[in-house]
Amino acid sequence: MPKFAAGVVRFQQHVFPEKQELFERLSKGQSPEALFITCSDSRIETAMITQTDPGELFICRNAGNIVPPHTDNTGGMTASIEFAVAALRIPHIVICGHTQCGAMTGAMDPGGLEHLPHVRKWLGYAEAAVAIVKDQGDTLTPEAQMRMLLEQNVILQLRHLETHPSVAVRLARGDLRLHGWVYDIEKGTVDAYDAASGAFRTVTDIYAAEVAQYATTCEHGDHR
Amino acid sequence: MPKFAAGVVRFQQHVFPEKQELFERLSKGQSPEALFITCSDSRIETAMITQTDPGELFICRNAGNIVPPHTDNTGGMTASIEFAVAALRIPHIVICGHTQCGAMTGAMDPGGLEHLPHVRKWLGYAEAAVAIVKDQGDTLTPEAQMRMLLEQNVILQLRHLETHPSVAVRLARGDLRLHGWVYDIEKGTVDAYDAASGAFRTVTDIYAAEVAQYATTCEHGDHR
Amino acid sequence: MPKFAAGVVRFQQHVFPEKQELFERLSKGQSPEALFITCSDSRIETAMITQTDPGELFICRNAGNIVPPHTDNTGGMTASIEFAVAALRIPHIVICGHTQCGAMTGAMDPGGLEHLPHVRKWLGYAEAAVAIVKDQGDTLTPEAQMRMLLEQNVILQLRHLETHPSVAVRLARGDLRLHGWVYDIEKGTVDAYDAASGAFRTVTDIYAAEVAQYATTCEHGDHR
Amino acid sequence: MPKFAAGVVRFQQHVFPEKQELFERLSKGQSPEALFITCSDSRIETAMITQTDPGELFICRNAGNIVPPHTDNTGGMTASIEFAVAALRIPHIVICGHTQCGAMTGAMDPGGLEHLPHVRKWLGYAEAAVAIVKDQGDTLTPEAQMRMLLEQNVILQLRHLETHPSVAVRLARGDLRLHGWVYDIEKGTVDAYDAASGAFRTVTDIYAAEVAQYATTCEHGDHR
Amino acid sequence: MPKFAAGVVRFQQHVFPEKQELFERLSKGQSPEALFITCSDSRIETAMITQTDPGELFICRNAGNIVPPHTDNTGGMTASIEFAVAALRIPHIVICGHTQCGAMTGAMDPGGLEHLPHVRKWLGYAEAAVAIVKDQGDTLTPEAQMRMLLEQNVILQLRHLETHPSVAVRLARGDLRLHGWVYDIEKGTVDAYDAASGAFRTVTDIYAAEVAQYATTCEHGDHR
Amino acid sequence: MPKFAAGVVRFQQHVFPEKQELFERLSKGQSPEALFITCSDSRIETAMITQTDPGELFICRNAGNIVPPHTDNTGGMTASIEFAVAALRIPHIVICGHTQCGAMTGAMDPGGLEHLPHVRKWLGYAEAAVAIVKDQGDTLTPEAQMRMLLEQNVILQLRHLETHPSVAVRLARGDLRLHGWVYDIEKGTVDAYDAASGAFRTVTDIYAAEVAQYATTCEHGDHR
Ligand SMILES: [Zn+2]
Ligand SMILES: [Zn+2]
Ligand SMILES: [Zn+2]
Ligand SMILES: [Zn+2]
Ligand SMILES: [Zn+2]
Ligand SMILES: [Zn+2]
Repeated sequence: MPKFAAGVVRFQQHVFPEKQELFERLSKGQSPEALFITCSDSRIETAMITQTDPGELFICRNAGNIVPPHTDNTGGMTASIEFAVAALRIPHIVICGHTQCGAMTGAMDPGGLEHLPHVRKWLGYAEAAVAIVKDQGDTLTPEAQMRMLLEQNVILQLRHLETHPSVAVRLARGDLRLHGWVYDIEKGTVDAYDAASGAFRTVTDIYAAEVAQYATTCEHGDHR
Repeated sequence: MPKFAAGVVRFQQHVFPEKQELFERLSKGQSPEALFITCSDSRIETAMITQTDPGELFICRNAGNIVPPHTDNTGGMTASIEFAVAALRIPHIVICGHTQCGAMTGAMDPGGLEHLPHVRKWLGYAEAAVAIVKDQGDTLTPEAQMRMLLEQNVILQLRHLETHPSVAVRLARGDLRLHGWVYDIEKGTVDAYDAASGAFRTVTDIYAAEVAQYATTCEHGDHR
Repeated sequence: MPKFAAGVVRFQQHVFPEKQELFERLSKGQSPEALFITCSDSRIETAMITQTDPGELFICRNAGNIVPPHTDNTGGMTASIEFAVAALRIPHIVICGHTQCGAMTGAMDPGGLEHLPHVRKWLGYAEAAVAIVKDQGDTLTPEAQMRMLLEQNVILQLRHLETHPSVAVRLARGDLRLHGWVYDIEKGTVDAYDAASGAFRTVTDIYAAEVAQYATTCEHGDHR
Repeated sequence: MPKFAAGVVRFQQHVFPEKQELFERLSKGQSPEALFITCSDSRIETAMITQTDPGELFICRNAGNIVPPHTDNTGGMTASIEFAVAALRIPHIVICGHTQCGAMTGAMDPGGLEHLPHVRKWLGYAEAAVAIVKDQGDTLTPEAQMRMLLEQNVILQLRHLETHPSVAVRLARGDLRLHGWVYDIEKGTVDAYDAASGAFRTVTDIYAAEVAQYATTCEHGDHR
Repeated sequence: MPKFAAGVVRFQQHVFPEKQELFERLSKGQSPEALFITCSDSRIETAMITQTDPGELFICRNAGNIVPPHTDNTGGMTASIEFAVAALRIPHIVICGHTQCGAMTGAMDPGGLEHLPHVRKWLGYAEAAVAIVKDQGDTLTPEAQMRMLLEQNVILQLRHLETHPSVAVRLARGDLRLHGWVYDIEKGTVDAYDAASGAFRTVTDIYAAEVAQYATTCEHGDHR
Repeated sequence: MPKFAAGVVRFQQHVFPEKQELFERLSKGQSPEALFITCSDSRIETAMITQTDPGELFICRNAGNIVPPHTDNTGGMTASIEFAVAALRIPHIVICGHTQCGAMTGAMDPGGLEHLPHVRKWLGYAEAAVAIVKDQGDTLTPEAQMRMLLEQNVILQLRHLETHPSVAVRLARGDLRLHGWVYDIEKGTVDAYDAASGAFRTVTDIYAAEVAQYATTCEHGDHR
């Protein structure tokens, strides 16, 4: 019955042999381009969205794409961020929220989480975003409120990220760049946070330069 | 320079349109087959290893594929497990470790983590596995010790998983199944834990029945 | 009025002199046979139930005979277990629940604990056992549910015990044995957990071999 | 080999039948005279020292007879104290330290606890007592320092006890009495803390009145 | 609009020049006479109440003049007390409560703090004082209850203070003195706790000796 | 000997009577203009620096003028901020560091804090600022490094402040303003953070408009 179990057998028999060379090279070590933090939601396939190969993204996933602020308490996110930023010295961090997010729906309505006490407490890390939406977005439609929350949550988690010493020092040094994304599951589009304007804009717009440059240097290659 | 930024533009322009129907359907909700817990390591591409489509795996990733035992303290793993098991009622949980794991290398030699205090503390959740390897594997080669640790860590995290109330109740009820895997990056193979014998065996062996059944029911389909 | 105060005077004047030799020997150090974890309930007299002398049981007692799972947080149980298992190298651990347990009654009905917030939170460590009873035992009588909870709680605390590194390493080495008991206050009987069958059986049955062996070696002695 | 296993069989076959009446009565409920907090040390047999029967002492035992001060964090001691004082309304609390205490030896020399991190942290609750001994007792012999520590630790844990709301309110009301004891394993004597003088005196001296009263009322009975 | 912003400009242009000598001397280091712990309430001006100059009081202020008891957890109060007592070796500590205290009003009626979850939790450190008032003061007028709470809270925080190792050791050594005050905002009077009698008395009464001595030695000076 | 004790007697006899009217008015309630967060250092007299009267500043003071980021854990700062911002609705928050700060000196050299474990842990909240100074200021003189740390610490604590939900929502609404100051004890000057340029400038410069406005409206008054 579990399809993924049959899948892994298929993978090792049919898929891996074709990629053997890549994996042999990767077994020497990883030097990913980005720490990619996103929701656990099953509809997000990180490799597909970013069109990356194994070895390119160091990935952290939890319900709600939450990043607790830095404190003396250690959790999985704090440790994984420290590993990615201070040990692997990854040059980019992406926090990627998404539409239809069950965690964010719960954050807006904690009453519905009565039987999920840990989810409720974990979503406390989105509390400042929820408070802003309830205060500033009270005249919006539920859909617009949810969109506002997705964006505010990404902005808040970026702010939390900046309280981590390993992140702060590299931001000061100028060799780390933060990205805040919202992925629309239904439309397949991604919007990115533009700190200068304080608003989200399409990735085509935000990354125009990167796309152009990448197109030039990789003109003849197919990277997937 | 960030390839993933160019990738996401490419995704929304060229890849998504072909999958539009799937994503439209997915935007109605998710009912994944498994909660898949694995390391953040960039060389693990969950969709590729399991040959699954978007919508099939609810994914949690952190450095070392750690599952803290259940306590009153809430962290990302505790909350995400509760969400997956008690709210989404997912029928399978996989904990997937892997070879060449930087986190596990650190767990064996905490001295090398002096400048990574949070990583060190997080790997404390693997301490029982490390202690077993140091005690029982002291005559083994470093490679064999590391292999033993990868396996012991997966077994320990499975045990931690069983202390979570949402997991315990569904195990008692018999509608949840746990899987412990070790993925070999270089060879592309996956071994799975066999609780009956207390040892790891090849997935081909462990999942022979599932593969056979799946082959029959899906004879004519290509699921990727 | 406090009888125990008069008792301690009586002890030092009348009882101790007869046992002086034993205590002189014990003042050189302790090497107890078991770490005995049981409820604080006044009706459990550990020395009487186990027919042991001073020096034979290292005893931890708290409301509900709870063993929190191992985490980075330190509490009395975690510290005392570490001391008993890693420093004193005690070869047996018993977790002993009991009938008529006020703590377990509270765990089944947390509503009644409104004015006892710490008791309520502490009993959260029995939450997985309670959840199993509520799910699997919903057609049982209250008495049978309580019995099921007493047993499930002992099983859960044994599982928590196995997450402690000092315990895990000695279990792997094979020189530590765990025992799960339920003591019936009214009948004076003790049932013990049989991991092989997953059920509780009478101690006469479980320890038949030990009793026989002990009877042989100690034929002429009276150990109390 | 485990003597306690043979002992429990012996208990239920030979000892319990003689006490059946007492246990039948006790199965109706407990109303113990004291909450008795002492060390886990195997050489302390609470029933023997206090010459009490089952049903008379609600017992908490941990390494070092520690009582953490009251905070929002819940542990076994905090919960068990709340249960004993607020629910069972027990009229006396005894904190009983003892000579030859391995925990207190560790508290004086934390360097020796390098491989027992949880023990070390737990003994942090005795830190104020240790600091006083190191400062005020620096010209004493090691034996005198240890004696001083045993007493200071009991005094400190009494102070911690007073920070618990359930204890504070009943002390203010005047229906709860605290006792601080040090039990000498080798000599079989107990000294008790006299708050008025700030010193420890023999129990014969401290409880002269109770002994006299008890002797009168129970003249013809044998309570053990 | 912000008056304090205009004030600071005025301070540096007009006030500081007159005190330049004092501040030049102070820039060499501080050796304050007291650690002064009081509420954040805007109506308490510490320098005015104590008629002290810069350099004389090391000041900690939080809502409710709370001192958490010593544990392994570190907070601002625990750290600041350690710094003041162990590093600066300050000879006096004052805990100063006050009338009209919003925090204490909240502590008496936690229901009113529903939207202030952190305030509610913080005031849990006054829980033992509240419990005493509710139990012992139930026949008093609300005003008398509040007065009783202000005093009981100061007494409780003094008790918490004594659990801090740095404080305990210096109290044992006899070179640290604790003071418990309640300041009446409307009347301008201060009452101080008299440990001997367990009651609060006027400062004129409590400090009669200090005032006399100070008057003699400073007869001709004006210290403000 | 304690001058502050003589001072308080002097205050209530000689100083208060002159201010009776103000205090009578204040006893009706407080509506302070700013939440003023500064170091416990004895050389900072908040009323003098800001030329404010009682009732104008709600004051929080701790070693290092630290603001922990918002988490589920409650401490004195988190609670006091919530009280000031969400209950009192104070329109300004100032974080005021200062030269010669013992806490910041300790933060730069944690080795010197070996005997002050809580101070060391508390200063962990300044870790990101220290890391930036050690990385970016490694060629500076010690004095310039310390100055850089004072400023970076204020900036970091402002960032922590923004993670508190009560603060975030009011910033979004636009009715709360944050101020970051460094006070120079020796020179009597205050510099303020200019978020636009990312640098500190003199208060005369930053608050030119406020001073002008205030001068106009209060032309004939003396507010001290
Ligand atoms: Zn989501
Ligand atoms: Zn890994
Ligand atoms: Zn019980
Ligand atoms: Zn002991
Ligand atoms: Zn107040
Ligand atoms: Zn300072």
